[in-house]
Amino acid sequence: MQDCPADLAKLRERIAEMRDLSRIQSIVHWDMHTYMPSRGAEARKEQLATLSSLIHEKLTDPALGRLIQRLEPLMNNAREDSEETAVVREVAREHQRATRIPGRLMQEATRASSDGLQAWLRARGEEDFHLFLPALERNYDVSRRTAEVINPDSHPLDVMLDRREPGFTCADVQEIFSDLKETLVPLIARISDKSGQVKDSILHQIYDPARQWDLSMEAVRALGFDLDSRGRQDRSVHPFTTAFSTDDVRITTRIRDDQFSPCFFASLHEAGHGTYEQGLPARWNRCILGSAASGGMHESQSRLWENIVGRSKEFWQFFYPRVRSYFPEQTAGAQYTDFWKAVNRVQPSLIRVEADEVTYNLHIMIRFELEQAVYDGKLELRDLPAAWNEKFEEYLGIQPEAPSEGILQDIHWSGGFGASFVIYALGNVISAQLFETAESAIPDLRERFRTGNFSALLTWMQENVHTYGKTLSPGDLVRQATGRDLSTRPYLRYIKSKTADLYDL
Amino acid sequence: MQDCPADLAKLRERIAEMRDLSRIQSIVHWDMHTYMPSRGAEARKEQLATLSSLIHEKLTDPALGRLIQRLEPLMNNAREDSEETAVVREVAREHQRATRIPGRLMQEATRASSDGLQAWLRARGEEDFHLFLPALERNYDVSRRTAEVINPDSHPLDVMLDRREPGFTCADVQEIFSDLKETLVPLIARISDKSGQVKDSILHQIYDPARQWDLSMEAVRALGFDLDSRGRQDRSVHPFTTAFSTDDVRITTRIRDDQFSPCFFASLHEAGHGTYEQGLPARWNRCILGSAASGGMHESQSRLWENIVGRSKEFWQFFYPRVRSYFPEQTAGAQYTDFWKAVNRVQPSLIRVEADEVTYNLHIMIRFELEQAVYDGKLELRDLPAAWNEKFEEYLGIQPEAPSEGILQDIHWSGGFGASFVIYALGNVISAQLFETAESAIPDLRERFRTGNFSALLTWMQENVHTYGKTLSPGDLVRQATGRDLSTRPYLRYIKSKTADLYDL
Repeated sequence: MQDCPADLAKLRERIAEMRDLSRIQSIVHWDMHTYMPSRGAEARKEQLATLSSLIHEKLTDPALGRLIQRLEPLMNNAREDSEETAVVREVAREHQRATRIPGRLMQEATRASSDGLQAWLRARGEEDFHLFLPALERNYDVSRRTAEVINPDSHPLDVMLDRREPGFTCADVQEIFSDLKETLVPLIARISDKSGQVKDSILHQIYDPARQWDLSMEAVRALGFDLDSRGRQDRSVHPFTTAFSTDDVRITTRIRDDQFSPCFFASLHEAGHGTYEQGLPARWNRCILGSAASGGMHESQSRLWENIVGRSKEFWQFFYPRVRSYFPEQTAGAQYTDFWKAVNRVQPSLIRVEADEVTYNLHIMIRFELEQAVYDGKLELRDLPAAWNEKFEEYLGIQPEAPSEGILQDIHWSGGFGASFVIYALGNVISAQLFETAESAIPDLRERFRTGNFSALLTWMQENVHTYGKTLSPGDLVRQATGRDLSTRPYLRYIKSKTADLYDL
Repeated sequence: MQDCPADLAKLRERIAEMRDLSRIQSIVHWDMHTYMPSRGAEARKEQLATLSSLIHEKLTDPALGRLIQRLEPLMNNAREDSEETAVVREVAREHQRATRIPGRLMQEATRASSDGLQAWLRARGEEDFHLFLPALERNYDVSRRTAEVINPDSHPLDVMLDRREPGFTCADVQEIFSDLKETLVPLIARISDKSGQVKDSILHQIYDPARQWDLSMEAVRALGFDLDSRGRQDRSVHPFTTAFSTDDVRITTRIRDDQFSPCFFASLHEAGHGTYEQGLPARWNRCILGSAASGGMHESQSRLWENIVGRSKEFWQFFYPRVRSYFPEQTAGAQYTDFWKAVNRVQPSLIRVEADEVTYNLHIMIRFELEQAVYDGKLELRDLPAAWNEKFEEYLGIQPEAPSEGILQDIHWSGGFGASFVIYALGNVISAQLFETAESAIPDLRERFRTGNFSALLTWMQENVHTYGKTLSPGDLVRQATGRDLSTRPYLRYIKSKTADLYDL
C-alpha cells in the first residue's frame, strides 16, 4: 500500500462522491415517504431516475475500474484485515456487480419493479393474484437474468443472497431453517393446546394516536437512540430507517388507533436499526465501510431491541408505569406481567409483520422454500398461491381466505423475486447469539432493564458490532463478537425459555 | 429550427437532467431548514458541495457549449418569441455565466459565503461589527471579481442585477427609488404627526402557537395556494418557499407566541410565492423555462398576497371572524376595522422584515445606496455602520442602538455583497401595477375579497404572469400583462389612497 497512496486517495475521493450522492438519494426517498404531497410523485420519479443513473455511471466508470485494478494486487501485500484492504474489496465488489449488469437489463429491472408495484397494488386491491402474475413473471425473469450475468456459475438464489448477506449460501440458510423448524413446529403445537393462558385483548382497544406517539418517543429515547441532535422520528405508511450520516438518522413509525402494538413495536424495531446507523464510526461517513455488515446484521439490531429487550419481562417492569400514565383507562386493573404476556402472545397468524416471535420464522421459511422451488423448476409461478396455502396449513395449521392476507401481503416480490425475506430470520438468530454473549459479559444485564438502564447493552453492541462497519463479513463479525460460528442454539434456548415462562411448559 | 430537431432534443435532455439535479438540491435544502437534526449539518455541507459541483460540471460541459453554438444561429431564423428561442437563450445565459467563472473563484466564493455565515452569526451574537468585517471584505472582493469575469465592461452592480432581474440596470433602479423617495419621505413625515390614530397593541399579546398555525393554514388555503395534494407548509427559522415541481411546492413560516403578525404574514407572503410556483406550466417541470421570470416578479406575487390582499380592508372583513373564533380573548371588543388598522400601522422602525408597507422601501433604498457607494469607491466597508446610521436618521428619523438591529440584521451580505435587496422593492412596485390592471379587468375584484373569493385574482395572475415562466424578461412581462412600462405610479397611488384612509390625510 505504501506504493500507491495517490491511487488510494483518488479512490477514496471517488467513493466519497458516490456516498454523498447515495445519501442524497436517501434524503429524497425519506421525503417521498414522509412529507411529499401526493401529486409530487410524478416529478419525484424522474428526479430519482436521474440520480440513480448518475450514481450508476460513477460506479461503472472505467477509470474507477482501472484504479481498482491497480490497487488490487497491492492489497495482497497488505495485512488482510487492514482498512485499506476492506475499502478496495468493497468497492471492487460493487463496481464488478454494476459493470456486469448491462444498462438495458438495469433499465428493464427498474421498469419491471415500478410496473410491478402498480400491478401488486391493483391485484391486492382486487384480491386477484392473476392481475399480479404477469408482473411477477417479468420480475422473476429479470432477477434470474441479473443473477446469471453477475455470476453464471452459481445458483441464482446464492448470487442474490450473497449480495444481502455476503458469504452466506442457500445451503447455510437451509441448515438454519431446518434446525428452527425441528424445534419450532412442535413447540407451536404444544403452545396451541394452552393458548387460553395468554390473552391480548388489552392491546386491542382505542389508543389515542397523539399519546401513542408521545409514548413511542419516550421508549425510543429510553433505549438510547438519539432523537434530539442526531436523529428524529416521523410517520410513514410503512415504517423504515434511513441514515444521511451517523449524525442524522431518521426512523419512522405508523399508528393505528385501535391497536397498541403497531406503533410501539415499529418504533422500537426502527430505533434498533437506528442505533446501528448512529453507532457506525463517523470517520466513515463518506467511506464505503460506513455501513452495516449485511441485511441480517441490521435486522439483528432491530429484532434485538424490538423483541429481546422490548418484549422482555424486565423492560415491562420498567416501562409499564409509563403506559399506565398515558392510558389509565385501557390498562385499568392490569399488572405489568399481564401487559408483558399480551405483547408476547403466541398465535399462528396469516400476516408476517404481525406475527409473534415464535411463528415469525415460519413465515420466512415458507417464502424461502417457495422461492427455491420456483428457481429449481419445481414450481410454476402461477401455482404459487396454492403452494403458499398448503405450506401455511402444514406449518401453522391455518390458511388465508383472501390473497391480500396470503400471497399478496408483502411488497417485496413486486420489485424482484428471490431471497428477499431471509435476512429477517437471520436477524432473529443473530440477535439471540449476540445477546447471549453480551449477557455473559455483563451478568446483570437483564436486571438493569428493570430500572431503564439499557446503556450497557447499547455500548456492547457499539463496541462489538457497530464499530466494525463493513470491514468484516457478517459471518466473521458474529464469530469475532461471540467467539463462535453463527448457530441457532442461542435463539432456540431464548425462545424455549421465554415460552416456558409464558405458557408454563 | 426545422434543421436541428436532434440537437434540440439533446439540449432538452441535458436541461432536464440539470433541472432534476437542481430540484434535488432544493429538496436537500428544504430538509436542512425544516427537519434536519442539528448535528446533521456537517455531513449535509459535504453532500451539498458534491451536488453543486456536479451541477456546475454539467452546466459548464464543453459539449453543452458546442450544442448551444450549433443551435444559436438557427435561432435567428426562428420566431423571436418561440419557446425554442427562449430555451436556447436561457441555457446559453447560464452556461456562459458558469463557464466564465473559474473553478477556483467558484470555490473561493463557496468558502467565503460559508465562513461569512459563521462570522455574521458570531458578530451578531456579540454585537460587534468588526468580527464580521474581514468576512465582509472577502465577500465583497469575491463578488466584485465574479462580476468582472462575467462582464468586464459593465459596472459590477449592473452585472449582479442582471442576474436577478434580467434587463434591469442600476440606472433603472435609481429612477424608481428616486420616485419613491420623493413621495414616501414627506408622506412618512405627515403620518408621524398623526401616529396616535392607529394602534397595534392588539397584535402584541400572547397568541397560542398551535392556533396561530391552524389560522395560517386556513388563510393560505383560502387564498388559493394548494396545501393538500400539491404543496405543504412547515416551520423553519427563516420563512421561505421552494418548489420541487409545480405539483410539490413547500412554504414555511415561523411562530412567535407574543405576536400575531410574524406567522400570519409570513404564511401569506410565502403562499404568494407558492402560487407562482404552482401556477407555472407543468409541461416545463424539467425545462429551464419553468421558473419565475425574475426575483422581482417572484416578490411581486408574495407582496401582492401579503400586502395588497392580506392587509386590505376587504380581506379583514372576510377573515376577521376566523381570528375571533380562534382568539376570542385577544380580540374582545375589537372590530374588523380595528384589526385592519393594526396590521397596517405605519411607524418608522429598524428591522426590515418587520417594517410596514410605507417605510419598507426606504430600508431597501438605504441598503442599495450603501452598496453603490462601496462599489463606486465612495465608502469603505469599515465605515458602513456609521453610514447606515446616518441614512436611517435621514430617511426614517431613527437610529439603531445595536448592530443586530442595524447593519448586522440581514443574512444577505454574509454570502456576497451587491444588489441583494433590490428585488424586494421592485416586487412592491410590480405588485401594485399588476393589481391595478387586474382591478380594471375585474371591476368588483376587491368586493369579492369580502366574501373570501380570491380565485378571480389568482386566475388573472396565472393567466397573465405565471403561465409565461421564463419566456419573457420581467420588463416585457410587465408590459405585456399591464399594457405599459413598469412605473412607480400605481404603487404610489395605492400607498397614498391606503394611508389617506388609515390616517385621514
